[in-house]
Amino acid sequence: MNDTFLKACRGEKTDYTPVWIMRQAGRYLPEYQKVRSKVDFLTLCKTPELAAEVTLQPVDILKVDAAILFSDILVPVEAIGMKLEFSESKGPILYDPVRDSIGVSRLRTLDPEEDVPFVMDTIKLLKQGLKVPLIGFSGAPFTLATYMIEGGSSRNYVNTKRMMYSEPELFHRLMDKITDCVISYLKAQIDAGVDAVQVFDSWAGILSPSDFDEFALKYVQKIISSLKPGLPKIYFAFNGSAMLNHVQKSGADVLGIDWRIDMSDAINTLGPDAKVQGNLDPCTLFGTKDVIARKAAEVVKKGMAAKGHIFNLGHGILPETPVDNAKALVQTVHEVSSKER
Amino acid sequence: MNDTFLKACRGEKTDYTPVWIMRQAGRYLPEYQKVRSKVDFLTLCKTPELAAEVTLQPVDILKVDAAILFSDILVPVEAIGMKLEFSESKGPILYDPVRDSIGVSRLRTLDPEEDVPFVMDTIKLLKQGLKVPLIGFSGAPFTLATYMIEGGSSRNYVNTKRMMYSEPELFHRLMDKITDCVISYLKAQIDAGVDAVQVFDSWAGILSPSDFDEFALKYVQKIISSLKPGLPKIYFAFNGSAMLNHVQKSGADVLGIDWRIDMSDAINTLGPDAKVQGNLDPCTLFGTKDVIARKAAEVVKKGMAAKGHIFNLGHGILPETPVDNAKALVQTVHEVSSKER
Repeated sequence: MNDTFLKACRGEKTDYTPVWIMRQAGRYLPEYQKVRSKVDFLTLCKTPELAAEVTLQPVDILKVDAAILFSDILVPVEAIGMKLEFSESKGPILYDPVRDSIGVSRLRTLDPEEDVPFVMDTIKLLKQGLKVPLIGFSGAPFTLATYMIEGGSSRNYVNTKRMMYSEPELFHRLMDKITDCVISYLKAQIDAGVDAVQVFDSWAGILSPSDFDEFALKYVQKIISSLKPGLPKIYFAFNGSAMLNHVQKSGADVLGIDWRIDMSDAINTLGPDAKVQGNLDPCTLFGTKDVIARKAAEVVKKGMAAKGHIFNLGHGILPETPVDNAKALVQTVHEVSSKER
Repeated sequence: MNDTFLKACRGEKTDYTPVWIMRQAGRYLPEYQKVRSKVDFLTLCKTPELAAEVTLQPVDILKVDAAILFSDILVPVEAIGMKLEFSESKGPILYDPVRDSIGVSRLRTLDPEEDVPFVMDTIKLLKQGLKVPLIGFSGAPFTLATYMIEGGSSRNYVNTKRMMYSEPELFHRLMDKITDCVISYLKAQIDAGVDAVQVFDSWAGILSPSDFDEFALKYVQKIISSLKPGLPKIYFAFNGSAMLNHVQKSGADVLGIDWRIDMSDAINTLGPDAKVQGNLDPCTLFGTKDVIARKAAEVVKKGMAAKGHIFNLGHGILPETPVDNAKALVQTVHEVSSKER
C-alpha cells in the first residue's frame, strides 16, 4: 500500500507531499454522474457496492494518495431519528428541527451495526485491494447540531445561536447526545478497517473563538481522545483560520486549513511540530494550467515548514471543476514536492 | 456635536467607547418598516427626505454615537450603467453581468452630481442639526466587482475567480474602472459634508491572502490615499480576520474586525497603534440580557488595548433582532467603558 498519506499524518519523512481532495468522489466526475444517474443520493450512500465504486473513482482517475469513504455527514443524524431529504435546490432538509427539550429527548442512541450497517459494509468492500489508505469521517458535533436545529443549511444560524445564548443547558444536552453518536460511529468505522478519520466542522467558522471554546471544542476533544490511539485523526474547522490557536487544542494529529490564511502564517501560529492539510482555494481549478501550477507550488513549498503536510484544497472541489485541471493539480503536487525534497 | 466617534478614529482619548451598529438603520426597527412600507427599497435610497429620516432613527432610538448614510453599495453601480433590482427572496440582482471586454467597456464614468445627486442631497439634509458625526460609505472595488460579475450574490464566486485566474488583465481593467467610480463617489460625499467614510469589502474574505494582495488591496490603497487627508477612513474586510496583516496595508485609519477573531488577537496582530472597530457576533443579540452584557463587556475591555476602539457588531444587525436588545447593548457599552476608564 502507498502509505505516504499516513506517514505525513504521523510527521514521518515522505518522498513527496501526499494529496487528496475533499469531495474528490463527486459531481465534477462524469464517472460519478453515471453511477448517480441510476439512484438518488441517499441510496448511493446506502448501497455498499455503489458507494465503494465511487469512492475508488478518484484514486484511479486523479492518482490521489488517499481515498475517503463516500457518504454524507447527515447519515448518522437520520439514523438517530430525524427525517432527512436531499433537495436539488436547497440541499439537505431535516424535518422537525430540534428546538426544545422534547426534540433533544426524542433522539435515539446510535447502534452503528444495526442502524448504518451499509457504512461498515462499504468500508470492508473497499479494504479488499485498495492501494491507498482509506479515510473514514464524521461531521463534528457543532456542525451536526446546526443542521439539526436549523433543519438544513442556514444563512445566519439564528436558531442555533439563540439556543446557545438563551438555553445553553439545552444546547449542551444536545451536544452530549451528538458526541456519543459520533464516537460510536467513528469507532465502528475504525473497527471495520479505515486507516484514518477526519472530523469535518464545516460550520465552526460561524463561531467567535470564545464561543468555539464553550460550545464546540470540548466535544471534539472528547471524540479525539476516545478513538484508537495511533490511528491518524484529522480535524477540519472550516473558516476557523483566525482562531487556529483555539482549533489546535482539539488534540487531532492533523489540522485542516482553509484558503483564507497564508499557509506560512498557519504554520507559524501552530508551531513547527504541526501537521497540516490544505489549503488551495478550490476555485483555483477554474484558472489556466499555469496559474494552477504556480499556486499549487506555492502551497507545497510553504507546507514544507510543517512537520507533516498533506496537500488538499481549502474546501470541497466544486461540481463545475474541469476534471483535467484536478488531474493536473495532483500531478503538479507530486512533481514539485518530489523535486523540492 | 458628540465627537467621541471621531476622536476614537483619530486615536485620541475619549470618555467612553463610542458605538454604532452596521445596518443600524434597517428592518429590525418598526420605525424603519413604517417608512419602508410606503416605498420600495431603491426609492427609499433615492428620496433624500426619507433616506435622512431613516438615517436618524437609530441615533434617536439606540443613542449610538454616529449615523451612517442610508443607501446601498450598489447605488453607484447602477449609476454607471447596470440595471439593478432588489428581490425580496434573492437579494440584489444586476442584469447582464460583466463577463467580457464588452461588458467592461460599456461601464460609464460616474459623475456624482449628475448621476446620484440624491446622495449628496441626503447628506446635506442630515448635516442640518445632526448631533453625531455622519459616516459616508462605499463598497470596495473587489466586492462591487463580485456583484457585477456574478449578477448578484453568489455561493462560490466561480465567475469572479474564473476571470481573475484566466483573464487577469480584464479583471484588473474592471477594477480600475470601479476604483475611479468609488473615488469620485466618496469625494462627492466628503464635499457634501460627511465626517468620516467607511469602505465595505464584504466579500474580501472569499480571497486567499495572496489573491487579496493581487486583486483587491491595491485598489483600496488607491482609494484611501486619494481622499481628503485628516478625514477618518475605515476599511472593513469582512471574513478577513486570518489575513489582518495584509488588510492592515490598506492605509485606512481604522480597521473593521469581524467576530471570527478574538479582539485581543486582532490587536496583537495589528500592533498597539491600531484603531479598530467591532467585533461582537450580531447573533449575540438573540441571547438573554445577561449574555449580551457579559459578551459586550468582554469586547469593550479587550478593545482598550488598541489606540482607538469603536464598538460595533462584527457584521450587520439582523432583521429579526429585538430592538430592546440593541438598546441594551449600546447602554452597556457606554456604561462599562465609562467605568473602565
